[in-house]
Amino acid sequence: MQKIVECVPNFSEGKNLKVIKAIFKSAQKIKSVKVFELEYNKDHNRCLFTIVGAPPDVLTSVFEAIKTATKLIDMNEHQGEHPRIGATDVVPFVPVTGVSMQECVELAEKLGKKVGEKLSIPVFLYEEAATKPENRNLADIRRGEYEALKIKMNKPDFGPFKIHSTAGAVVIGARKFLIAFNINLDTPDVEIAKKIAGIIREKNGGLPGVKALGFKVDGLVQVSMNLVDFEKTNFDEAFREVEKLADKMNVKIKSSEIYGMVPLETLIRAIKTTFKAKEFNSGQVLEKRIYE
Amino acid sequence: MQKIVECVPNFSEGKNLKVIKAIFKSAQKIKSVKVFELEYNKDHNRCLFTIVGAPPDVLTSVFEAIKTATKLIDMNEHQGEHPRIGATDVVPFVPVTGVSMQECVELAEKLGKKVGEKLSIPVFLYEEAATKPENRNLADIRRGEYEALKIKMNKPDFGPFKIHSTAGAVVIGARKFLIAFNINLDTPDVEIAKKIAGIIREKNGGLPGVKALGFKVDGLVQVSMNLVDFEKTNFDEAFREVEKLADKMNVKIKSSEIYGMVPLETLIRAIKTTFKAKEFNSGQVLEKRIYE
Repeated sequence: MQKIVECVPNFSEGKNLKVIKAIFKSAQKIKSVKVFELEYNKDHNRCLFTIVGAPPDVLTSVFEAIKTATKLIDMNEHQGEHPRIGATDVVPFVPVTGVSMQECVELAEKLGKKVGEKLSIPVFLYEEAATKPENRNLADIRRGEYEALKIKMNKPDFGPFKIHSTAGAVVIGARKFLIAFNINLDTPDVEIAKKIAGIIREKNGGLPGVKALGFKVDGLVQVSMNLVDFEKTNFDEAFREVEKLADKMNVKIKSSEIYGMVPLETLIRAIKTTFKAKEFNSGQVLEKRIYE
Repeated sequence: MQKIVECVPNFSEGKNLKVIKAIFKSAQKIKSVKVFELEYNKDHNRCLFTIVGAPPDVLTSVFEAIKTATKLIDMNEHQGEHPRIGATDVVPFVPVTGVSMQECVELAEKLGKKVGEKLSIPVFLYEEAATKPENRNLADIRRGEYEALKIKMNKPDFGPFKIHSTAGAVVIGARKFLIAFNINLDTPDVEIAKKIAGIIREKNGGLPGVKALGFKVDGLVQVSMNLVDFEKTNFDEAFREVEKLADKMNVKIKSSEIYGMVPLETLIRAIKTTFKAKEFNSGQVLEKRIYE
């Protein structure tokens, strides 16, 4: 079975296209991986992209990108709305197919060691790869940002106990695949979306692994969700729950949006559940079989 | 965009494993295609398998298999329950991704010409590749089978106007992807499955591209369907229709089975329709993007 891992590195440059492209192209030097979905934002002053492929190749590819970012970004001059602590800010590894979370944790450790030793940048491991409970949550590590990093320098997981003079520090880790899923309601009343979001969100005792907000965007009343663990709550289950709640308020679902990339497994699971097709599996998908 | 075509050649040998494997292995000689799902049946005295890959490679692969079948099968000694007219009985090309039906028709013509010229076997083109209306339907070409072939020898599309002394003739063509989809009802009454099958089948004015039968198999009451054009009626639509009809008779759906291989596009379509996710597309599936 093929092993595929995804990596979505975030870098602290969202304005200078030359720098952004140089980082992106460095990742592309490794021909056996796919590098795509380059996004950058001037206000955030930040860019990110997706690398997908076999685990060792993805590691090499993202290391090349980090090397370039280290050379070209100076954090002493960086300003942006998005929290950040380094030139390469955060690097999550995500299992896609044939790869366990444990393997992604080991990838994060391997990359962390390499970045610490070869680039002399302190590395903090986060989420599934975290070695300390206080580093599990990315927001906690980034609190105070680059400017407050000095006080954390007593405990990086790899690299020197001293901030890199231009590149700051890096957060590397492993996490589950995140699915961005929006449901548009057939109502002008944003309060209904907010109410539904409040009920389904995990924090309030709703669906496991679901973060949700009610919005009005482009004239659409939307329940906007991040599904951080599709094995617990997949998009089809979220859809049915929102439909049920909306129904109680006499509101219909107008449309939904699956945003960005998803692993084939999310589709398989949605179909198995929705159509009671217990035996259905990804080995039945022609396109997948061809490349096994 | 990658081009993928499927080919499912059927051969008149279902007993002699040596012959079956020799044919299968000939197809596998072409390393750039995937050859799988070998099935054979003693009573039918027939075997079939699936070749998937880029169009020219699939053509070469199936031609190798035909060459071997021509060498090893003697139709004068063949007996079996399934209708057949040749050692290689029927060879359909099926578009999977990035390939039009017209390209599959051209593949059928190319293969037909090659089989006719190089192996001296008369070739009839069928379904989408048919050059005569009376050859569109496979059952019509096969009527009377191998034994009645002589009277048809005034009009093959390629090859000699004379039956091959041991290999008979071949039917080659192009057709749409066929999805085998079964729905098990939560009732012991097979008449309900038969009634539903009768209503949804296209022939009776039901769903376009749907062939359906009501069965009792392994204690399960089943609506067994062949979806011969999933762009007209996909499995999710068939499911909802069966659910609606069963509901009227106070019967629930117990489970469903998607049988064999399916193209990714069927899953995409099912998800777009079921979850009103109009913009969702196969480019968002990580596994697909990796190999583009």
